[in-house]
Amino acid sequence: MSTIKVAINGYGNLGRGVEKAIAHAKDMELVAVFTRRDPESVTTQGAPVVSLDDVDAWADKVDVVVNCGGSATDLHVQTPIIAKKFNVVDSFDTHAKIPEHFEEVNKAAEGGSNLALISGGWDPGFFSLLRVYGAAFLPESDVYTFWGPGLSQGHSDAVRRIEGVKKGVQYTIPVEEARQRILGGEHAELTVREKHERVVYLVAEDGADKDKIRDEIVNMPNYFDEYNTTVNFISDAEFDAEHTGMPHGGDVIRLGKTSEGVQHVIHFNLKLDSNPEFTGSVLVACARAVVRMNAEGAQGAITLFDVPPAKLHPATPAELRAHML
Amino acid sequence: MSTIKVAINGYGNLGRGVEKAIAHAKDMELVAVFTRRDPESVTTQGAPVVSLDDVDAWADKVDVVVNCGGSATDLHVQTPIIAKKFNVVDSFDTHAKIPEHFEEVNKAAEGGSNLALISGGWDPGFFSLLRVYGAAFLPESDVYTFWGPGLSQGHSDAVRRIEGVKKGVQYTIPVEEARQRILGGEHAELTVREKHERVVYLVAEDGADKDKIRDEIVNMPNYFDEYNTTVNFISDAEFDAEHTGMPHGGDVIRLGKTSEGVQHVIHFNLKLDSNPEFTGSVLVACARAVVRMNAEGAQGAITLFDVPPAKLHPATPAELRAHML
Repeated sequence: MSTIKVAINGYGNLGRGVEKAIAHAKDMELVAVFTRRDPESVTTQGAPVVSLDDVDAWADKVDVVVNCGGSATDLHVQTPIIAKKFNVVDSFDTHAKIPEHFEEVNKAAEGGSNLALISGGWDPGFFSLLRVYGAAFLPESDVYTFWGPGLSQGHSDAVRRIEGVKKGVQYTIPVEEARQRILGGEHAELTVREKHERVVYLVAEDGADKDKIRDEIVNMPNYFDEYNTTVNFISDAEFDAEHTGMPHGGDVIRLGKTSEGVQHVIHFNLKLDSNPEFTGSVLVACARAVVRMNAEGAQGAITLFDVPPAKLHPATPAELRAHML
Repeated sequence: MSTIKVAINGYGNLGRGVEKAIAHAKDMELVAVFTRRDPESVTTQGAPVVSLDDVDAWADKVDVVVNCGGSATDLHVQTPIIAKKFNVVDSFDTHAKIPEHFEEVNKAAEGGSNLALISGGWDPGFFSLLRVYGAAFLPESDVYTFWGPGLSQGHSDAVRRIEGVKKGVQYTIPVEEARQRILGGEHAELTVREKHERVVYLVAEDGADKDKIRDEIVNMPNYFDEYNTTVNFISDAEFDAEHTGMPHGGDVIRLGKTSEGVQHVIHFNLKLDSNPEFTGSVLVACARAVVRMNAEGAQGAITLFDVPPAKLHPATPAELRAHML
């Protein structure tokens, strides 16, 4: 069997995570990295670097593109464009805009007879799968999602935009007492503040007004004002030693019943040392499924909800039945 | 949209669990209970009871049959027979014989242009899904399954076959220390004895030799000899008050890495008050998927590995994308 030829579009943290994941997949091969930067400025682990302006020439040499841009500014533009020429996978994670993104990508992919999987990763992605299976298997139920402990990119960006902040990260932490109440089977109604807290570590510029920075953070609308937030000022050295990883994770917990007094708890937890590496690894499995399903005739946009799990794994269905069922 | 018409084949604990689950599914309707017993002797919550000898007449009135017999003696015979005439779902759980059962059922279902899903439930079933997703998303990893705390039907049957035992149940208990080692990220190699212990509660016949019973249990080959087993003799009254439920559950834990020193833990846990009610609820979702996939042309045998998750849930794909992704 020939290997699946993959291109990575966008070579940031996620792109490098995808690159590592492809190296673990014996049935797949990285053939190019697409970039909107000057290709000369990008150094990969070996794959050729191609300007986004020149990717059309790669249409016959690539089975699937993994789009590794950000949801906020890149993917809603890039995925429809790529989908016209290539099978494609993205990790679009702006939940409210998923239906709109799906329609755009669907139109583009169908026009090109390609298949595009959007919103792969862990949330949306693996967490979403657990939400659907749980709801299907236990219809009379409530679902609770906790995020963290983990680094939130959006909240870290918000902290870094504040005047006087040199470096900053924000960790989202589930409130353990709330988590245990749900795990214990209590269908609790929890406010935003009761479910998660936020912890910031930052390095201030010399002479910056720390009280003003702290005030600005804890009162920031949408990002922090509805949470209990702790702001820690630390040194450059401590920041570099302790806060350059990108851990994340969380819980999907479903509580339900099948008859009066008969309760069930479905609990799913992820603890990820590196959010981009795990997300990249999920995207590579999605890329495998997309190539297989497109070869069988599937076109347009899909999500993980539409993918038979066996398509994600390199083994044959018979091997999976024999060893994993 | 017309409702999906379901028949239950076999009206024991699992059959009653399926009956309850269908009552929670607005898009489904129980139209008959098939039985090999005298139909006059079976009282359902309202559905007509039909002798297994007469089910051919129901071929046009039933969209899918849920086979609720046991794996040991019933399903390997019954599922191929039913699959010739009906779409069918079963919970065949003799792991070693799944490939053989799959082939038999596949032949029968294809011959009848029907679709048959085998080995639905939670293990095999929901646990299997987590094993495949985990292996696909994290190829460099080890997986650990713990079962329990929960009542094991096979081990309880084995206890009850011993002379002098009037009533008996066996609980499988994961060894918490071992579980915590794995959850803590240690790729431990654990023996059978280190992973699970077995606890038996039984009522002895009057005058029975309790030491002999205990010896016979703890030394029983395959069932108990490789485990630490505790045998508790209790009264009839305590047995009836405390040990007539059928709780179960367990853990699927996957430890893996995406690059040197970058670890991830995927943890899935089920706590089920009633094994047959939860299993029944999963089978009903599988039945929904089977009817939808057969209507789209799928025939032969499948497992949950072949089912796009969206097919299991009553909502439309667009609704699922908007609310669960």
